[in-house]
Amino acid sequence: MNLPALLDTLAKDSDRHLDELVQWLKIPSISSDTSHREPTAAAADWVAAKLQNAGLATELVPTDGHPMVIAQTPAVPGAPVALVYGHYDVQPVEPLEEWKTGPFEPTVRDGNLYARGATDDKGQVLTHVQSVCDWLATGEPLPLQIKFLIEGEEEVGSENLERMLPSLRERLACDCVVISDSGQYAEGQPAITYGLRGIATYELELKGPAQDLHSGSFGGAVMNPAIALCHLLSSIVDREGRIQIEGFYDDVQALSQAERDAWARLPQSDAQFAKGVGVTELFGEKGFTTDERRWARPTFDVNGLRSGHQGEGVKTIIPATASAKLSFRLVANQNPQTVTTALQRHLEQHLPSGVRFTLRPDHGAPGMLADPESRFATAASRAIEAAFGVAPVMIREGGSIPIVTRFQDVLDCDCLLLGWGLSDDNAHSPNEKFKIQDYHRGIAASAMLWSELGKLSESK
Amino acid sequence: MNLPALLDTLAKDSDRHLDELVQWLKIPSISSDTSHREPTAAAADWVAAKLQNAGLATELVPTDGHPMVIAQTPAVPGAPVALVYGHYDVQPVEPLEEWKTGPFEPTVRDGNLYARGATDDKGQVLTHVQSVCDWLATGEPLPLQIKFLIEGEEEVGSENLERMLPSLRERLACDCVVISDSGQYAEGQPAITYGLRGIATYELELKGPAQDLHSGSFGGAVMNPAIALCHLLSSIVDREGRIQIEGFYDDVQALSQAERDAWARLPQSDAQFAKGVGVTELFGEKGFTTDERRWARPTFDVNGLRSGHQGEGVKTIIPATASAKLSFRLVANQNPQTVTTALQRHLEQHLPSGVRFTLRPDHGAPGMLADPESRFATAASRAIEAAFGVAPVMIREGGSIPIVTRFQDVLDCDCLLLGWGLSDDNAHSPNEKFKIQDYHRGIAASAMLWSELGKLSESK
Repeated sequence: MNLPALLDTLAKDSDRHLDELVQWLKIPSISSDTSHREPTAAAADWVAAKLQNAGLATELVPTDGHPMVIAQTPAVPGAPVALVYGHYDVQPVEPLEEWKTGPFEPTVRDGNLYARGATDDKGQVLTHVQSVCDWLATGEPLPLQIKFLIEGEEEVGSENLERMLPSLRERLACDCVVISDSGQYAEGQPAITYGLRGIATYELELKGPAQDLHSGSFGGAVMNPAIALCHLLSSIVDREGRIQIEGFYDDVQALSQAERDAWARLPQSDAQFAKGVGVTELFGEKGFTTDERRWARPTFDVNGLRSGHQGEGVKTIIPATASAKLSFRLVANQNPQTVTTALQRHLEQHLPSGVRFTLRPDHGAPGMLADPESRFATAASRAIEAAFGVAPVMIREGGSIPIVTRFQDVLDCDCLLLGWGLSDDNAHSPNEKFKIQDYHRGIAASAMLWSELGKLSESK
Repeated sequence: MNLPALLDTLAKDSDRHLDELVQWLKIPSISSDTSHREPTAAAADWVAAKLQNAGLATELVPTDGHPMVIAQTPAVPGAPVALVYGHYDVQPVEPLEEWKTGPFEPTVRDGNLYARGATDDKGQVLTHVQSVCDWLATGEPLPLQIKFLIEGEEEVGSENLERMLPSLRERLACDCVVISDSGQYAEGQPAITYGLRGIATYELELKGPAQDLHSGSFGGAVMNPAIALCHLLSSIVDREGRIQIEGFYDDVQALSQAERDAWARLPQSDAQFAKGVGVTELFGEKGFTTDERRWARPTFDVNGLRSGHQGEGVKTIIPATASAKLSFRLVANQNPQTVTTALQRHLEQHLPSGVRFTLRPDHGAPGMLADPESRFATAASRAIEAAFGVAPVMIREGGSIPIVTRFQDVLDCDCLLLGWGLSDDNAHSPNEKFKIQDYHRGIAASAMLWSELGKLSESK
């Protein structure tokens, strides 16, 4: 393949690329809304047709929910196999009144394309679809086999995909999964994300008296479950964010000095970060920088608190119950089940007298940590630098994408998280956008990635 | 007055007494419900007519809300003046489906009269109305002047009465206020309540980031307001209910040894008490019994907690805010304003980093402590023993009745709390009741109280 010629073609086709993204974004594929079942299916049809027309072997795979699109180019003996994972479903659009233009009326403003799904994930996954289709349109074969798995239930938890994944093992067999559903480090500074935190979430309920009691007649004699909850939650984490559960840090994989050095060179201002989220000061575990705390240290958060009187004014009661929604972010090597066992024991040991508790685990997933110097990461780095004009930084991300660890486990593959988005793209919020320049750079980086990956010999 | 003859008359009239209570209870005088303005006024008219017909100088005094009924018998030179305070308004009736018979269809079952307002307070205040009317019906003069103040806004906070009280000072001038709006110590064991706790209530709000944040991207770097709230509230009170605010106990009036000895003789079982409210064990400040903790020690309660995700399932956020509703019960000598100042300072000193707080005081009232051996208490004790066949025990009560301290302050009078109710009367709850025997014994005790008080010479 004459790569400069392909890049020329891609550049000439940029208007069509944008038109096609606009077409796809017009389809309101809100997976969580049962009234949107038809447009959600239509969004699957749209991308399946595009892949099919480009010559890929394409199938709509039904699930108990929305269908998955699975497609592939021909096998290339001796070369690795790449699997592009993405999703065509989008988040709900409420509050609608905060959108400057309709969420399904894609609109260009200031170099950005505004629409629900622009960055999450139609715009990002389409970069790979476009690069493959355009490559094939040149008549030249791809230097490796590329598979696509584009599902319609990422925004509702990917439960059907998780369950079906083992049965799709042969079909999706690959050396590396490529996912573009995240962000660059900063505007104009692309990144490769090689680590994700895991997660473990819980609902905790404390029960005291059989019903709300008059705080005058009973105050001082009966333990108040809301106060007990405060004492109990305070025992889990200190005021600096250090988790107090016995053995909690035993499995935590320490940061390497190389990582710490690399991250220390990233442009980062705590003052600017604090201002961006509207707090007067940051906080966290002593001895770690802000990025280290967010990306590579486990954390504990209370996501919700509820007890007693919720309405206006005063109701002087001892509430019968108090409850909290809790979540841990975990790092590589930490196991959600081990955390659950330790948490249960901690709660038993620190429960104030006079109340009972119930802990309900909700969901858990381990963290992901890939090798930032793997041959795939090195190949991706070269491709991104060529397309963006800047070498990507190697970072981790504090969030959790449970399906990624499932891919690693079930498909026994490597993983590349190549986000083209920006932190202010308003994913999941009103006025979601995607920078048009990043869409085009993403397509070019994707084409160069296939070229670079094609140079690697098959690993297994 | 031939007292035995009067008591005979009262006994013969018991059917009429009950019929009249039933009439009054049929009037749905829910003061908080603007759609019940007419029946609330009708309940005022009913008792005003009863007092007027018995010969009392009676007036309906309009307020910005529901009217007050003020009535009085002729002055008796040399004798003290008693003011009976009570209320004709009642609590709402929801949840209606839990009532076995309609809340405004008074029904007799097992020796009890079931209806909203049966014990709180129509049944109880009517004991004094009946005794005075029947006394006057004998043609004999009362041995003291008796005034009535029966308001229609007790269940909505008595704000109009509180505001108007100074302007009514002359009209309501008295030596002792008599209130029957509380309970006996236990079934068949009447009590005189000589102490009430005060109260101070607050709303506390903590603010962190400008909006809810993703706990993956920001967890560990930004203080979680819900966790900060737990640490902050935990700093106010320890796990045994001991308040940690500096100087909080400085003004607390210690229990006398005589009181502790007297209360130690009250029949009381912690195990039974715990079982009654549905907890496995009681708790509280070391070195005090359950009654001492409830009646004579200040306490802190969290009445409501709210932060972050309230719905089903998980939403992994760092909430932008966390709030709590707080209340202290205070004892004699403690000043709510002093408590507010100390609480504000405590919060400033113990606030976790990275959050701001707002404390909004709601309402406050000091505690009440009367002399359990005053001449009025001694006279009431004799009257109650004669009517109930058992001498009343002298107790305090953990709740707060702000108007009582206002009476003491504005009218410079003593105060007698003579509750005829029982703890299982379901005041404010479905299936409110009043034991019919207690209604009749209350009327007799009231008549004997006027006789006993008449023997005391005027104090001022």
